[in-house]
Amino acid sequence: MKILNSPAKASEYRKSLKGSVGFVPTMGALHEGHLSLIKKAKSENDFVIVSIFVNPTQFLPGEDFNKYPRRLEADFEICKRAGVDAVFTPTPENMYSEDEILIKAPKVKGYILEGFFRPGHFDGVLQVVNKLFNIIRPTRAYFGKKDAQQLYLIKQMVKNFFFDIEIIECDTVREKDGLALSSRNIYLSEIERNRALSISKALKRAAKLSASIKDTEKIKEEMLKILDVDEMQYIAFVDRDFNYIKEIIPGNTIILIAAKVGETRLIDNIFI
Amino acid sequence: MKILNSPAKASEYRKSLKGSVGFVPTMGALHEGHLSLIKKAKSENDFVIVSIFVNPTQFLPGEDFNKYPRRLEADFEICKRAGVDAVFTPTPENMYSEDEILIKAPKVKGYILEGFFRPGHFDGVLQVVNKLFNIIRPTRAYFGKKDAQQLYLIKQMVKNFFFDIEIIECDTVREKDGLALSSRNIYLSEIERNRALSISKALKRAAKLSASIKDTEKIKEEMLKILDVDEMQYIAFVDRDFNYIKEIIPGNTIILIAAKVGETRLIDNIFI
Repeated sequence: MKILNSPAKASEYRKSLKGSVGFVPTMGALHEGHLSLIKKAKSENDFVIVSIFVNPTQFLPGEDFNKYPRRLEADFEICKRAGVDAVFTPTPENMYSEDEILIKAPKVKGYILEGFFRPGHFDGVLQVVNKLFNIIRPTRAYFGKKDAQQLYLIKQMVKNFFFDIEIIECDTVREKDGLALSSRNIYLSEIERNRALSISKALKRAAKLSASIKDTEKIKEEMLKILDVDEMQYIAFVDRDFNYIKEIIPGNTIILIAAKVGETRLIDNIFI
Repeated sequence: MKILNSPAKASEYRKSLKGSVGFVPTMGALHEGHLSLIKKAKSENDFVIVSIFVNPTQFLPGEDFNKYPRRLEADFEICKRAGVDAVFTPTPENMYSEDEILIKAPKVKGYILEGFFRPGHFDGVLQVVNKLFNIIRPTRAYFGKKDAQQLYLIKQMVKNFFFDIEIIECDTVREKDGLALSSRNIYLSEIERNRALSISKALKRAAKLSASIKDTEKIKEEMLKILDVDEMQYIAFVDRDFNYIKEIIPGNTIILIAAKVGETRLIDNIFI
């Protein structure tokens, strides 16, 4: 497995490849969720490239950029065992320069929900993904549905920027008890982890209710009865294009939750 | 010669090409300046693609978007004679969508000089060039030195976004009397055209003076004696990276002028 520690090396490696390339961009601290993306990429492409880069521009001031888990050696081992062909591990210094040309998330869809609570977050996400796409030039790129709004915006960027890349949406991987996997789960104490479970439970309940109840306000009321969190940031109902909806549209609805348990901010969602 | 009127058709055509591709992005109303870019592209690449697109997002409210000269049939004829392989003529509708992901020119270099007098202009330029680069995926792209700050920002975008494209800088083409060619010159009356000549004369004089005088303020004074315009917007001295300079650096200086003659805004520059 190749370790590519600069954009120049990654470009050079990419040019040497003949065949389809599956790309899994990550911030490292790999878990089963990432592994499911890697396995899917492996099954659909001739080559798989994983990037590991804790991207500074998508963290807001005061967020957890410094304490975000970093365990490169363990991540390399996971990638190696999964049959990854190359891992791209750039540094902020070789990805960014002074007085950069910036990318701004869409004025509406980039500034609601996650974009409202983390204003500018998606600017940074799109900025780095645009760079990664140009360096890696993948045939297919793999993203998890857990970051549903991010996934939507990346598909939007592919359209707006005319990237010739297929975006593959991958289901959220969960613990047996329902907790959505996240590199940030390690911040949770045991007690907090138990309370965090109420998020996935509320979503599961909402999905079940949506078979008979279409009114999203009524479903929201039921979800609030289950949720046991310290700060409820949003419960939202949107269609697949992130337009708010008042009635469930089967096959075209996402229910999203963002909440803090203790100091840890968690997001989860369900596609129905 | 192929006429490609949508991004989808241009992408498909591009995929059919084996060999190097030279790309000349234009807003049409082609003149000898464009032709010199096309000829250079032709001499250096297996295929040449020209785009003709009056890009709405780079015009500010109140600017000349509507009256900007459009003469597609004549442009096709010029391209055909020059041996262009394909002309890409998209419409605003198939280039842009609602709630777009936006590109912001660098905070400093994108908002001085042209960016100061036309705030947001370069956002639109970079937005469309980013799209065009992804659709055409050229080996080399050709830009004129007349739009020196645009050229600098496009080179910056290639670096920041990690495009695998060589940017070729082409000398400004001038009328015999020195007037820099521009599609906007048609707006000038005969009297205005004569006064506009003072711009290139002032630049030529500045270049000559710079051999003996290094102080840019002194050179500027001499230029102002020659200039006969209605509104002087800027006379600026920068290095090749668009940092302001107070002393001429031979081989690393650009002297730029922007001025209005009548209602027509003109820019010109000289690399010394």
